[in-house]
Amino acid sequence: MKNSIGTSVILTLAGESHGEAIIAVLDGFAPGIPVDEAFIAEQLSRRRPQGAADTARREPDDFRILSGVFNGFTTGAPVSIFIPNVNTRSIDYEATHTLARPSHADYTAHVKYDGFEDWRGGGHFSGRITAGIVAAGAIAIGALTRKGIKVGTHILECAGIADKPFAAADPEALSDQLDTIATLDFPVLSDVRDAMAARILEAKSDGDSVGGIIQTAVCGLPAGVGEPWFSSLEGEIANALFSIGGIKGVEFGSGFALAGMRGSQANDSFFNKDGQIRTATNHSGGINGGISNGMPLIFNAAVKPTPSISRPQATIDTGSGKDAVLELKGRHDPAIVRRICIVASSLVAIVLCDQLALRFGTDYLR
Amino acid sequence: MKNSIGTSVILTLAGESHGEAIIAVLDGFAPGIPVDEAFIAEQLSRRRPQGAADTARREPDDFRILSGVFNGFTTGAPVSIFIPNVNTRSIDYEATHTLARPSHADYTAHVKYDGFEDWRGGGHFSGRITAGIVAAGAIAIGALTRKGIKVGTHILECAGIADKPFAAADPEALSDQLDTIATLDFPVLSDVRDAMAARILEAKSDGDSVGGIIQTAVCGLPAGVGEPWFSSLEGEIANALFSIGGIKGVEFGSGFALAGMRGSQANDSFFNKDGQIRTATNHSGGINGGISNGMPLIFNAAVKPTPSISRPQATIDTGSGKDAVLELKGRHDPAIVRRICIVASSLVAIVLCDQLALRFGTDYLR
Amino acid sequence: MKNSIGTSVILTLAGESHGEAIIAVLDGFAPGIPVDEAFIAEQLSRRRPQGAADTARREPDDFRILSGVFNGFTTGAPVSIFIPNVNTRSIDYEATHTLARPSHADYTAHVKYDGFEDWRGGGHFSGRITAGIVAAGAIAIGALTRKGIKVGTHILECAGIADKPFAAADPEALSDQLDTIATLDFPVLSDVRDAMAARILEAKSDGDSVGGIIQTAVCGLPAGVGEPWFSSLEGEIANALFSIGGIKGVEFGSGFALAGMRGSQANDSFFNKDGQIRTATNHSGGINGGISNGMPLIFNAAVKPTPSISRPQATIDTGSGKDAVLELKGRHDPAIVRRICIVASSLVAIVLCDQLALRFGTDYLR
Amino acid sequence: MKNSIGTSVILTLAGESHGEAIIAVLDGFAPGIPVDEAFIAEQLSRRRPQGAADTARREPDDFRILSGVFNGFTTGAPVSIFIPNVNTRSIDYEATHTLARPSHADYTAHVKYDGFEDWRGGGHFSGRITAGIVAAGAIAIGALTRKGIKVGTHILECAGIADKPFAAADPEALSDQLDTIATLDFPVLSDVRDAMAARILEAKSDGDSVGGIIQTAVCGLPAGVGEPWFSSLEGEIANALFSIGGIKGVEFGSGFALAGMRGSQANDSFFNKDGQIRTATNHSGGINGGISNGMPLIFNAAVKPTPSISRPQATIDTGSGKDAVLELKGRHDPAIVRRICIVASSLVAIVLCDQLALRFGTDYLR
Repeated sequence: MKNSIGTSVILTLAGESHGEAIIAVLDGFAPGIPVDEAFIAEQLSRRRPQGAADTARREPDDFRILSGVFNGFTTGAPVSIFIPNVNTRSIDYEATHTLARPSHADYTAHVKYDGFEDWRGGGHFSGRITAGIVAAGAIAIGALTRKGIKVGTHILECAGIADKPFAAADPEALSDQLDTIATLDFPVLSDVRDAMAARILEAKSDGDSVGGIIQTAVCGLPAGVGEPWFSSLEGEIANALFSIGGIKGVEFGSGFALAGMRGSQANDSFFNKDGQIRTATNHSGGINGGISNGMPLIFNAAVKPTPSISRPQATIDTGSGKDAVLELKGRHDPAIVRRICIVASSLVAIVLCDQLALRFGTDYLR
Repeated sequence: MKNSIGTSVILTLAGESHGEAIIAVLDGFAPGIPVDEAFIAEQLSRRRPQGAADTARREPDDFRILSGVFNGFTTGAPVSIFIPNVNTRSIDYEATHTLARPSHADYTAHVKYDGFEDWRGGGHFSGRITAGIVAAGAIAIGALTRKGIKVGTHILECAGIADKPFAAADPEALSDQLDTIATLDFPVLSDVRDAMAARILEAKSDGDSVGGIIQTAVCGLPAGVGEPWFSSLEGEIANALFSIGGIKGVEFGSGFALAGMRGSQANDSFFNKDGQIRTATNHSGGINGGISNGMPLIFNAAVKPTPSISRPQATIDTGSGKDAVLELKGRHDPAIVRRICIVASSLVAIVLCDQLALRFGTDYLR
Repeated sequence: MKNSIGTSVILTLAGESHGEAIIAVLDGFAPGIPVDEAFIAEQLSRRRPQGAADTARREPDDFRILSGVFNGFTTGAPVSIFIPNVNTRSIDYEATHTLARPSHADYTAHVKYDGFEDWRGGGHFSGRITAGIVAAGAIAIGALTRKGIKVGTHILECAGIADKPFAAADPEALSDQLDTIATLDFPVLSDVRDAMAARILEAKSDGDSVGGIIQTAVCGLPAGVGEPWFSSLEGEIANALFSIGGIKGVEFGSGFALAGMRGSQANDSFFNKDGQIRTATNHSGGINGGISNGMPLIFNAAVKPTPSISRPQATIDTGSGKDAVLELKGRHDPAIVRRICIVASSLVAIVLCDQLALRFGTDYLR
Repeated sequence: MKNSIGTSVILTLAGESHGEAIIAVLDGFAPGIPVDEAFIAEQLSRRRPQGAADTARREPDDFRILSGVFNGFTTGAPVSIFIPNVNTRSIDYEATHTLARPSHADYTAHVKYDGFEDWRGGGHFSGRITAGIVAAGAIAIGALTRKGIKVGTHILECAGIADKPFAAADPEALSDQLDTIATLDFPVLSDVRDAMAARILEAKSDGDSVGGIIQTAVCGLPAGVGEPWFSSLEGEIANALFSIGGIKGVEFGSGFALAGMRGSQANDSFFNKDGQIRTATNHSGGINGGISNGMPLIFNAAVKPTPSISRPQATIDTGSGKDAVLELKGRHDPAIVRRICIVASSLVAIVLCDQLALRFGTDYLR
């Protein structure tokens, strides 16, 4: 499966940044779930590049639901969403299109598709396609919310500036944190927005870019979701996150920090709180043996600095194979960390809907 | 898919630590590939716990190939491998079996399987099942080697002691490093074995355990393998690694360190070396846009400290739900970092065989 | 997988008869394959209802390729096709929409989707969606043709009138037959068109409908395609054909007639014809042990009479559960046998592309 | 997927007729289901060749459950079953092993596996492997029975002698019929056993073989199971049945007979019987739009005459490609129709468990 993800609830994407539209098809979604088109529009706007700390090029996001929704509710048939592309400039790319952008998919696509790949913008590799994830994901987020399950992502770190982390072992406090960031365009828990924006602009004026770490939390997921071995919850979530361009690392709970701990430090003791089983700490990120344990899911993803920078870079010409120098002009996304947050939440929401449907049946989300 | 992984080349596992045997079925493997049973035995012995720095309980690994191999070559039919379990002690577990081991799958399995789970040892969650991965993986490793593709894993870090890393941007040097560790039971590149062993024993005598980071490299993989979006090479590899008990983080190339870099630092410039396209650095870990670029694949996995420690731990009784104190006796794996190396290499080898078969056809590995 | 079919080459469909458009996404198709939009249009017109012997309602088929094609060739990215719906009349259905049409999906959809299903026309069950299969299938048919593989379907029988069958054991003669029917709107090999049309019109004026049998042949498929056991070529093809509404039986080669034969009659002897291995007869339909043997694939599918007839029928009201009488007005497809031929060929072509890609690699069709 | 079938409940098979054992792994089965080993043994014995009307070679079927069952109940972990092969005679095959048996998989396996296939007996294509289907299927049948769902198969026709058909439109009568054949080794509803046996023996003494038609019914399946389009219940069942060697046609309800009917004849009117929705006739075989409607599922499969006959046959030598004459000695299965009945029921039971788990969740069968 390439452009589809999922087993019972399945998302299929198609489209290119410079084609007519992006298409998202969400299949297997339970019938009778209310679809809030205003919420979809809101989520899409959160995904949009904004202001100076993102990029100047505007990408408005109209969308139309072509099927699968009738009288405001899902019908059980696949939901297909059509998101037109506007305001694209192929001219930006023509001059340099045979030069492979370092750390970008130009070269690998050229090898894989033997020169037939659509080189305009990022073609099928473009971040533009994430609009499809966000639109379909909005329906998933809505369905989960109705079951008391919340998903949200904030910027844990950007350009070296750190935000306060999610309250991993305190479901009530975490729930409030998720409510707070749900309304923010720049999702951070503490007052670090301006410091981060300053670093981003600094990099931009240097013709450079920055990266960061995003942190996602899921609150209210019942225990028992996920499978041991090859359909572990970590594996399913990681496979989804790694599909998002720019993500180069995924860790659950205390992740790589666990490597330096002792078992007595890292283990999460169980205790009974008013009849509910909880853990005193949450180094496991809510998952044991690939299965959810009822505590919040917590996981981080590393976002590399955007590869398209305007400084000159050594590279090769994919046509001749010869060494060359690339100087990109006109399109410069100094950071995608903010925008990736909502893409991550959207995709994780779809994965969770799939896991819940597999575990509890296709009507679970109604 | 739960106990199966793969699309064209598929591994299926079954068995429990205290059942009669572990079964591994490797399906879709090309015909005509020589199967070296001595090599399988060697790999299985590398997986075995050894000496004081592992655990005292011996687990010899006989195995029998039941099908799929005829006159020393794969037939194209599924290869099934039978690995008997011996030397198990259910008595070890009976006294405490209703107490959930913190950070272990006891509780989540109890919820998911409603009390019917096999609680002896780790049941189906036991590391014992990795014997199946290693046996089947030995066939995959052999096939890849014949195509000039090498896979290997060393301990990058254990209990705070660091090994020298793989030469990520130097394929020739990396190839030598892989040859070196292939022969080592304790796979490290520099002289850190004794320091690591000391830390492990320290923890053991404290009734505690330690974790670490393993690093895997793949050399010689052609460019163009993997798919954009939902079958990215990172996603496929990460999904596999996260299925191994104990792994809580996966990063590619410079991984989480990319978060603090600028694009000008992180980008891997392309250049032409005697007709071969290479990158000057390898922060991408050999993968761009989900597709291999011909440079070595490099990725790290975080291994948490083994949860079964003998110190007293607060927990709950899964039967009554009440708070309790757990004191494990008699079975104490202070570290699995060494043993996980070969499990990781084996599983990654199978994933690569699958990706190569999908890309180039089922006869590619012949 | 529900609205997707395939493993390496995957077709995903979405849309309803009364929604804005049908969407087809063809994923995993090799890059560099020429896409002939005139041919797609031609195939779509063959699918269209025609004249009195079909139905009066006109369904013109414009379409737009939204992605995956650049400068007239596939790029390797998913091809998405947008086919607008026009000329629909919801009014036709409103009066009777709670009455379940016998032998139609109204009742089962109501149970499965709990009243939320889109009852207009056939909703997602409508034959209209086959336009997506035919458009995507046209690309597959073109790719196969370039590799010397031909697919075609004729009406073997309709309303009791029989056509001459395909020359199953004579690849050269069969190839000519396939060329002949490729140009026909009413695909029959002998002069039976008028007799069939007469029967269809008879049924129509009786307020009734008729069924038939379609026969598909594939010429030029190499031996060795398909897998033993659960991915047999018969299984893959049958799964695809049974997805088409109206099909209730599939048989390969001599199919059900084999039940009454002896082995000495039914066995296909092998012989060597100028270095090529052939069989003297083709009762097996070109498949042994689930794998193609190089002889033409031959298979038949039974098409039931269209359920929407205008005679009064006893049924129940899905809302109240009470007995009722249904009298449909205004929409009357007396036979879909002709139109199903091209849908079958299109879908089989996609399945074959998938099987060839799995066997020989993703670049095989280039 | 090749040697695995299913999405939530998955069967994986491995083994060859002349290898040490057949392995069946049943994954995803709900925990807490009682496993009756005596019933498994009984089902395996029904599958065994018997007496003169089958074949002389005895194949006793011991088996051992290696995992997934604890204290007599499924644990939720995969159930693996080990069925040793005994009493095989490779010598029977050596003399003729390069000659391709007509209508058998010898030639296609040779092409696909390039000479590396295991030619002993049928290798991986052997009917022997169906022992794995029957053992795993016994667990599925037991689980379905506990939910009030019955599955059974009888011989509808053999060597031209017809049995009385299942009462397709009368669930109560059908339930009795299923109870009756469940206890029979030679599953027929009327007194035709001796006539059929006579025809079989006649063919055998002519050095020949016969075929037949089997008919399967499922009683008690709730409405709403199966999916429109590509996971239709017909498609899933047909894909499974076509995986069984010898099956060359599958039809649902009135199947191919529908081709000659009018809609007014073929349509199944709905009516309300004491609050339960039924159909007056059952030409649809219990399935509309790919989804079960609550009436019994009824379907037939065509079984070709066994290809291994002792009469001389023209063929080719797979090594040289030259024409040759094959005269098989010593192994002669004149009919597999009887034995295929239980294989079909077993496999269908597994498919239904998968469909029910997907629809209603993994705990449905508990």
